[in-house]
Amino acid sequence: EVFRPMRQKEVKVVKSVMSAPAITVTPDTSITDASKTLIEKGINHLPVVDSSGKLVGIVTSWDIAKAVAGGRSGRVGEIMTRKVITASPDEPVEVAARKMESKRISALPVVDAKGRVIGIVSSEDLSKLLAR
Amino acid sequence: EVFRPMRQKEVKVVKSVMSAPAITVTPDTSITDASKTLIEKGINHLPVVDSSGKLVGIVTSWDIAKAVAGGRSGRVGEIMTRKVITASPDEPVEVAARKMESKRISALPVVDAKGRVIGIVSSEDLSKLLAR
Ligand SMILES: C[S@@+](CC[C@H](N)C(=O)[O-])C[C@H]1O[C@@H](n2cnc3c(N)ncnc32)[C@H](O)[C@@H]1O
Repeated sequence: EVFRPMRQKEVKVVKSVMSAPAITVTPDTSITDASKTLIEKGINHLPVVDSSGKLVGIVTSWDIAKAVAGGRSGRVGEIMTRKVITASPDEPVEVAARKMESKRISALPVVDAKGRVIGIVSSEDLSKLLAR
Repeated sequence: EVFRPMRQKEVKVVKSVMSAPAITVTPDTSITDASKTLIEKGINHLPVVDSSGKLVGIVTSWDIAKAVAGGRSGRVGEIMTRKVITASPDEPVEVAARKMESKRISALPVVDAKGRVIGIVSSEDLSKLLAR
């Protein structure tokens, strides 16, 4: 019989791979300004926060492409997704990956215990773990 | 002394995780139609092919958001990225992940030996591997 030492499973948590701080917009940001922010920062996702910094939605380049397809201009509040799937900073990355897979989304705002957005974790951040 | 069997490293290749077939557009597709395709299919990346099926570019919801920010409408050929980073079907997923990380992109068209687009692999496809 061969002795097999238990494989030590390293638990990697969201805060170790997330991008922080998150770049955010507010519901009254114009769609054009949100697009400009996405471009300047080279990102695809913008959490939407209210004046107290509380998460109220998310808007992505996909939502903006959709607004274009529908011939819409206007404010972020009109096109954002309001029911946001989030991650907590101490959540294992596998849990975040499973949320993205089951909801078919590519990023999760990372929210602290007080509901403030402290970062964002994307499938790009997670796939970097494979590149190691 | 403890005998430690060599850890069997499973090589996962791109074709086992890519989305196929890839949905493509041509340079003369209008930006509005490309946006509609992205929305209808729920995707973010469209390889651009010429009439012979050869890869000539890539256009993403990010490029479309950029076109909006610049107040542009028109054809895909005007906004696509021409120098496309690709993957081969038998490439290990780690290699694809490293390309995405180093180029800061989130998807690679998968091209066969004849230069035809047979699929696309995204950071979303790769991060699903973590969810297992
Ligand atoms: C620099 S990234 C920034 C946004 C985000 N990181 C992403 O991956 O979509 C966006 C640009 O990369 C380009 N791009 C995306 N995939 C590409 C690929 N496989 N090869 C070359 N350029 C690509 C897009 O056309 C777009 O202009």
